[in-house]
Amino acid sequence: MTDIEKKIGYEFRDRSLLETALTHSSYSKEKGQDEGHNERLEYLGDAFLDAIIGEALFRMFPESEEGFLSKARASLVCERSLVDRAREIDLGANLRLGYGEEKTGGRNRDSILADAMEAVIGAVYMDGGFEKTRSLVLQMFRGALKDAEKGHFLITDYKTALQEELQARGINISRIRYVDAGQTGPDHDKVFMVRLEVCGKTLSQGRGKSKKQAQQNAAKDALMRKEDVI
Amino acid sequence: MTDIEKKIGYEFRDRSLLETALTHSSYSKEKGQDEGHNERLEYLGDAFLDAIIGEALFRMFPESEEGFLSKARASLVCERSLVDRAREIDLGANLRLGYGEEKTGGRNRDSILADAMEAVIGAVYMDGGFEKTRSLVLQMFRGALKDAEKGHFLITDYKTALQEELQARGINISRIRYVDAGQTGPDHDKVFMVRLEVCGKTLSQGRGKSKKQAQQNAAKDALMRKEDVI
Repeated sequence: MTDIEKKIGYEFRDRSLLETALTHSSYSKEKGQDEGHNERLEYLGDAFLDAIIGEALFRMFPESEEGFLSKARASLVCERSLVDRAREIDLGANLRLGYGEEKTGGRNRDSILADAMEAVIGAVYMDGGFEKTRSLVLQMFRGALKDAEKGHFLITDYKTALQEELQARGINISRIRYVDAGQTGPDHDKVFMVRLEVCGKTLSQGRGKSKKQAQQNAAKDALMRKEDVI
Repeated sequence: MTDIEKKIGYEFRDRSLLETALTHSSYSKEKGQDEGHNERLEYLGDAFLDAIIGEALFRMFPESEEGFLSKARASLVCERSLVDRAREIDLGANLRLGYGEEKTGGRNRDSILADAMEAVIGAVYMDGGFEKTRSLVLQMFRGALKDAEKGHFLITDYKTALQEELQARGINISRIRYVDAGQTGPDHDKVFMVRLEVCGKTLSQGRGKSKKQAQQNAAKDALMRKEDVI
């Protein structure tokens, strides 16, 4: 097994698929048109990644609405997240790059790493079929999915996310209110509390080092909550 | 088997999944929160539809680039196409709609039909797994995929599609030229001919009842062509 195969725990029957997945277009442009590059496999891998992570979130949050699931998925399969996965398996060291890309640090460039990561997923699909791909993706994203289960997404603005979700259900922004609910702690270490009210009903509460952070936490709590409270 | 099951050739183990797929949110809003609706399954079905059609096109056009594959897929899984599939199996007649939607013709509304079609795909995935879903989708889209193989996409503007593909490969618009190549036929039934040149090389030719149509056909021919000519 090659280094990458060991790291992803999958041995290719047709290793040329893996090679193509690791070949950046700059390499094949240099070598001539017979050499394939990874853009087609990236297209394939991207779609299966979406479907597999989509299913995982669908099962993980049985009460959440489509809007939340879409946002959660976008956060899990974003470039940042793919680059993290790529670095975990040292994908950069195994890429085939053109001379120019190599010279300008392409081996460590986020976009190149993320694309190659998706291409490897596409290559596993073509080589081993759906179930192998699903296992691989779920294993690679295990940490990210666990974080998601705890509500730690790459979503940075929960207030906006909640507002969009509520609007999608026909609730007007004017019915969403963040109400100050006091402070605790000494002056140098205050904790602010906020109550989130939707249509006059308290939906959640949040705490934080600032009012803003408390509001974000309240929105996050509401997003993670079972739907029947809304 | 229910009517829909017969028409899609799949019998559900858990028929409540099919019921949910056929339930519009307007119905569950009327009946109260215990009734599920089809938006979550639509989210799931949409992703698997993309992946399965994506793979079919990947195999069908082994020489085409990612840009073309993406456009072809977008055309095959667009609302128009999903509505056609939904009407073929008379999906509208089997929907559960709220009173208001029912009264205003929701049963025949494109967006509702397309969403329910994706939800049925999601339901089959949850009930029967990937291979069953793949078979179902490939069977449902068999005609559309055959059309795609012949180059009949729902893409209406091939010139724009080609321009985008060439630009993605670093070719400037100014290097793309449609050159008049004469006319044939009698005055009342003229056929125009156009030659498409990219970077000074003839890439394809097109014929049509107007210069515009001839250009579109030339662009379409170039898009469908093996990549090594570009």
